[in-house]
Amino acid sequence: MSGPAGAGAPDWELLFRPRGIAVIGASADLGRIGGQPVKYLSAYGYPGRVYPVNPNRDEIGGLRCYRSIEAIDGPCDVAIIAVNAKAAVGALRECGRKGMRFAVVLSSGFRESGAEGEALERALLAAAAEHGVRVIGPNCQGYLNLENRLYATFGVLGLEPQLRQGSVSTVSQSGGFGFSVVMLAEAAGVGFRRIVSSGNEADLTAPELLEGYVDDPGTRVLLAYVEGVRDGRALMRAADRAVRAGKPLFMWKTGNSPAGRQASLSHTANLTGDHAVYRAAFRQAGILEVHDIDEIADKTRAVLAGRLPRGRRVAALGSSAGSCILFADRCTELGLEMAPLAPETEAALAKMLPAFGSPRNPVDVTADIFNDFGAFERAVDLVLRDPNIDQLGVLYAGLSGEVAHRCNQAVAAAARRTDKPVMLAWAARRHRAEAAYAAADDAGIPYFSSPVRLANAAATLARFAEQRERAARRTLFAETLRPESAALAVRPGALSESESKRLLADWGIPSSRDLIIQSGEEAAAACAGLRFPLAAKILSADIPHKTEAGGVVLGARDPKELQGAVAAVLRNAKAHAPQARIEGVLVSEMITDGVEMLLGVVADPAFGPTLALGMGGVQAELLRDVTHRIAPFDEETARDMLAELRCAPLLFGYRGRANADVDALVAALTRLSQAAWAHRDRLLELDVNPLFVRPRGLGVVAADALVRLA
Amino acid sequence: MSGPAGAGAPDWELLFRPRGIAVIGASADLGRIGGQPVKYLSAYGYPGRVYPVNPNRDEIGGLRCYRSIEAIDGPCDVAIIAVNAKAAVGALRECGRKGMRFAVVLSSGFRESGAEGEALERALLAAAAEHGVRVIGPNCQGYLNLENRLYATFGVLGLEPQLRQGSVSTVSQSGGFGFSVVMLAEAAGVGFRRIVSSGNEADLTAPELLEGYVDDPGTRVLLAYVEGVRDGRALMRAADRAVRAGKPLFMWKTGNSPAGRQASLSHTANLTGDHAVYRAAFRQAGILEVHDIDEIADKTRAVLAGRLPRGRRVAALGSSAGSCILFADRCTELGLEMAPLAPETEAALAKMLPAFGSPRNPVDVTADIFNDFGAFERAVDLVLRDPNIDQLGVLYAGLSGEVAHRCNQAVAAAARRTDKPVMLAWAARRHRAEAAYAAADDAGIPYFSSPVRLANAAATLARFAEQRERAARRTLFAETLRPESAALAVRPGALSESESKRLLADWGIPSSRDLIIQSGEEAAAACAGLRFPLAAKILSADIPHKTEAGGVVLGARDPKELQGAVAAVLRNAKAHAPQARIEGVLVSEMITDGVEMLLGVVADPAFGPTLALGMGGVQAELLRDVTHRIAPFDEETARDMLAELRCAPLLFGYRGRANADVDALVAALTRLSQAAWAHRDRLLELDVNPLFVRPRGLGVVAADALVRLA
Repeated sequence: MSGPAGAGAPDWELLFRPRGIAVIGASADLGRIGGQPVKYLSAYGYPGRVYPVNPNRDEIGGLRCYRSIEAIDGPCDVAIIAVNAKAAVGALRECGRKGMRFAVVLSSGFRESGAEGEALERALLAAAAEHGVRVIGPNCQGYLNLENRLYATFGVLGLEPQLRQGSVSTVSQSGGFGFSVVMLAEAAGVGFRRIVSSGNEADLTAPELLEGYVDDPGTRVLLAYVEGVRDGRALMRAADRAVRAGKPLFMWKTGNSPAGRQASLSHTANLTGDHAVYRAAFRQAGILEVHDIDEIADKTRAVLAGRLPRGRRVAALGSSAGSCILFADRCTELGLEMAPLAPETEAALAKMLPAFGSPRNPVDVTADIFNDFGAFERAVDLVLRDPNIDQLGVLYAGLSGEVAHRCNQAVAAAARRTDKPVMLAWAARRHRAEAAYAAADDAGIPYFSSPVRLANAAATLARFAEQRERAARRTLFAETLRPESAALAVRPGALSESESKRLLADWGIPSSRDLIIQSGEEAAAACAGLRFPLAAKILSADIPHKTEAGGVVLGARDPKELQGAVAAVLRNAKAHAPQARIEGVLVSEMITDGVEMLLGVVADPAFGPTLALGMGGVQAELLRDVTHRIAPFDEETARDMLAELRCAPLLFGYRGRANADVDALVAALTRLSQAAWAHRDRLLELDVNPLFVRPRGLGVVAADALVRLA
Repeated sequence: MSGPAGAGAPDWELLFRPRGIAVIGASADLGRIGGQPVKYLSAYGYPGRVYPVNPNRDEIGGLRCYRSIEAIDGPCDVAIIAVNAKAAVGALRECGRKGMRFAVVLSSGFRESGAEGEALERALLAAAAEHGVRVIGPNCQGYLNLENRLYATFGVLGLEPQLRQGSVSTVSQSGGFGFSVVMLAEAAGVGFRRIVSSGNEADLTAPELLEGYVDDPGTRVLLAYVEGVRDGRALMRAADRAVRAGKPLFMWKTGNSPAGRQASLSHTANLTGDHAVYRAAFRQAGILEVHDIDEIADKTRAVLAGRLPRGRRVAALGSSAGSCILFADRCTELGLEMAPLAPETEAALAKMLPAFGSPRNPVDVTADIFNDFGAFERAVDLVLRDPNIDQLGVLYAGLSGEVAHRCNQAVAAAARRTDKPVMLAWAARRHRAEAAYAAADDAGIPYFSSPVRLANAAATLARFAEQRERAARRTLFAETLRPESAALAVRPGALSESESKRLLADWGIPSSRDLIIQSGEEAAAACAGLRFPLAAKILSADIPHKTEAGGVVLGARDPKELQGAVAAVLRNAKAHAPQARIEGVLVSEMITDGVEMLLGVVADPAFGPTLALGMGGVQAELLRDVTHRIAPFDEETARDMLAELRCAPLLFGYRGRANADVDALVAALTRLSQAAWAHRDRLLELDVNPLFVRPRGLGVVAADALVRLA
């Protein structure tokens, strides 16, 4: 991740509040890529100096134009480079000589366009390193800082000189679409601050820009639109820092489907990796995933109100039963709890409400209450102060005019008496409720157009509060153990089952007792010490998928059956893969008192060693009851994983079963995560399926294992 | 569902285009419930006569007021009743005598408010039946017909005299919130026609109103907002008729969570039933479920464009890779196929596009194409005509001004040359693209603010096209068999396992071979004819959950183990439920070559006999891999169910397994659905878990069964 300028974070203030900006390749046609930044920088209010550079012009857009970079005669920190790709390298070098610290390369024709472009991108990076210039792009749409009305960009955002200033800073890997997301979110009410299109990310990457936003006191919310990151851990570290700083990071990640990934690859050749792993990393690092524009606008407004709930308990107070029902549905779906109110609260509400209302959460105050604003305010106050609830949604749909105004004043008054979040599901037409909107805005009470959207926002607040609490308590990555194993030295490629099990044993994960034999005839005598039932499995590094090869027979109940099983396994394997080198047949004791789980490690291209935990057995893949975390992690994280599985109750005494040894499973998972991290240079893949989790006190047993080494 | 007026459908034209409307309980305060309808009916353009009725007034809102219903002196078809609940019954009777055919009862204080109100509601119904009056409500917000500017309502919709007229007709069970949904959807661009708040549905129900909309030539789209219906089959029949008529029915169903259901019950005391069953019914009858307001607006606009795709193959043509990626992701998620274009299309596109574009689907034409509108139109035309695709999404985000105008003209021109759906992901600010919006609107090209929303709309078109095709081919309910069984006569309540299996056998579903024995001692001798391994299960109608009671031991491998198993099962059962009557121990052959499934029948309170099919075994409940259909149905429907299960591949040769006897499973499911329907008066519940589906040709075997009779 080190950029060409080498050590340390870039001086972001120099990028966002430069004394001067040069536009290299400035065009007299202000509609073109090289012309638009000149126009916007000169006309939209940016207070610094602007230097158009074009060898053929003396004036562009009313500004003096410079014939060369060399000729620039004042302070200049940033170069906007809009010349063609081939000329860009030389231009960047000159800018570096001139002392500019940042180059924002709008030009395309680099990595995204094939081998020649890739070479140009390398040359660009080399020139930047040589002169200590940090690069944004190439193949990007530039950047904006609305704090000082700096529009160093072309395309859609330049059409809007009056973009609302706010405290959301954003980075987008997609220029065209990413900026249109900003435009749409702004139209939906979001105020932005710093906006960067990161393009090919040859030097400065999305995670680095996000780190910069964490350090910017004026930024309160971070938003990233990404197709994929090369260094997933850098992204997680940036997110973790954001959470600790109390700044939510919303992330819109695309390129998640095969079709989307293919389109993404043919675009900027960015790796996108497996979406399940991204999701896991997001959960682990406290990133809030978003999926559409209105969602961004809603959730941003919710967090900017500046209140977080202490827990997941939510109450609703609505003027129609319909909205209460809908809100309750959606909250439940999102894991919020429609908590019962304290009996005193219910009793007090019951006295105030008509018979067709409901004093229970969700509280239906009925439209009658709008005849008595005092009663309305008391009701809001009662529910909000109830010790059983952490936040409140007030639902009054299309309420307008003076009624809405007085209601909003009442909600604001009640809100001032607590620090709990209070939000509205409310969507009066603007012109019928100007005063009411002003009252809500003045009091910082966010409103959403439907109870569904309000519930989504409430869930985001609860989620972020939990993430903050967790980040304060734990380190992102827990790096403690480095268990060794002789099996790591075996050879590159796939290890056999017994070699794989030896590695697991060295890392503290026991396997089922087993023996290797060579033929059915010797089976009975050789296996006299093992306890039936037994499993016979072909042992060959060339046959990774034994079941498909007919290489597994389970449940041999006596020596005769075992002899047949061993013979069958050998016969099937030879038929399936005649050229395979066969080590023998592994005869293993079968565990009959364990819950079958699956434990795995993959080397994710973006995130590195990543652990998988899921339901085991042959159906595992089918049912996709599996969850991931990025290694290394602690036991609490391992327990989080377990809690995400649908099959988890199987381990906790489900339907009369014995409680399984969850502590042993958690310990194995944690230890494996740390070993996988420690040996990330060697371990490409590890699969334990099934891992039997035996009754409490009896530990875990790996019944099958497959390891691939680098 | 027959209303008090008895046979036949109501004369809807009389309700929606009445010659005159009386407002009983008209109030001189035009802001009150009895005043608002007078004001709206007199001032918003309704062409019929309006008769305010109030014993104390001669004039209300500029209209002559009548001292009594009797005094009304002109044609009058509809009464709006706004007097209090107690007075409503008498008022309705008088309206009936006066010849009015519909009463819309706004008053609350009926079923929703307790026992006294329930009695009033019964009295209201009786009066209506006596006089042949059909009732809407009580406890509703009235109705509107925008076709003739008829606003017979109070509340939020009355604030908007200019509500856009269109061809969407709607019924809402929630007055306050339902009408605010209409208001918000209208603001988002939906034109409505007939709008009814159905309230308590004492007489006319949502399904009946929907039937009326199907028959209304001016209605092209149906929308229902429901908390629950009492007659689920009536809803399905209405939906099926709508689909056959080419009119999509969008349904927003709330009260789906325990918290929402509780709020709903305390509201109108409507049953809501299990949401999984509703979902199944929606799929089965072709209902399109929606979950928020913008979604309603988007999907309505998509279907109103009047084009349906022939299949699920979708193409995208976008000016930025970012939007292409996002669209591809979302389409994939929704089950649409980003189909490869024909090689000729790709070749022709490749010639037109710059190197950093992509001629493959999703086609990235890059923003460069906007320099050549001819090329743009050719590209749209090429993709749209490609035989491999069924519909096209054009993505150009914030494009505005003349460029957007010319692009929309180009898309419109290409669209005219096919009948495939063409839609835009486009969200220019209105004032920057007036001409472009007009071009899209004139050509009937729908646009959506993001690629995500466009994909949602495209999926809805594909879904509705499939539903139409299916409805044309099949009947909704397939009623053919009525298999009998002596076991149905056994007794009410739970049958024992062996009785239950006898019932299954009579209905053509075989069970595992078994014997009933009374003690461990006799086990070996008695079971000499059965094939090991054997299972021993306690047999007692008093112990429905055998596993939890320790009443099941599986896998006895020899006579000695069997003896121990039988003894253990008896011991455990006696310890678990000392008072239980024990029939004995059922010893059954275990099936070792079958896939475990679950088959069940429940008597749903709203839909009646409903079949469940899912993954079997003890984990079934946990993994919730289960799907439902309303009985009776055909084999194609049974296959649809199977296709919805994550575990389905287990039946189709998953990882080297034998192909299972899917035909036998489908036949069993279909037969059971028809038997369950035929015996719906007796059968309360039936559970087969596991049902073993053996290899092809070997059929299915029920290994455990539980039946409850009424």
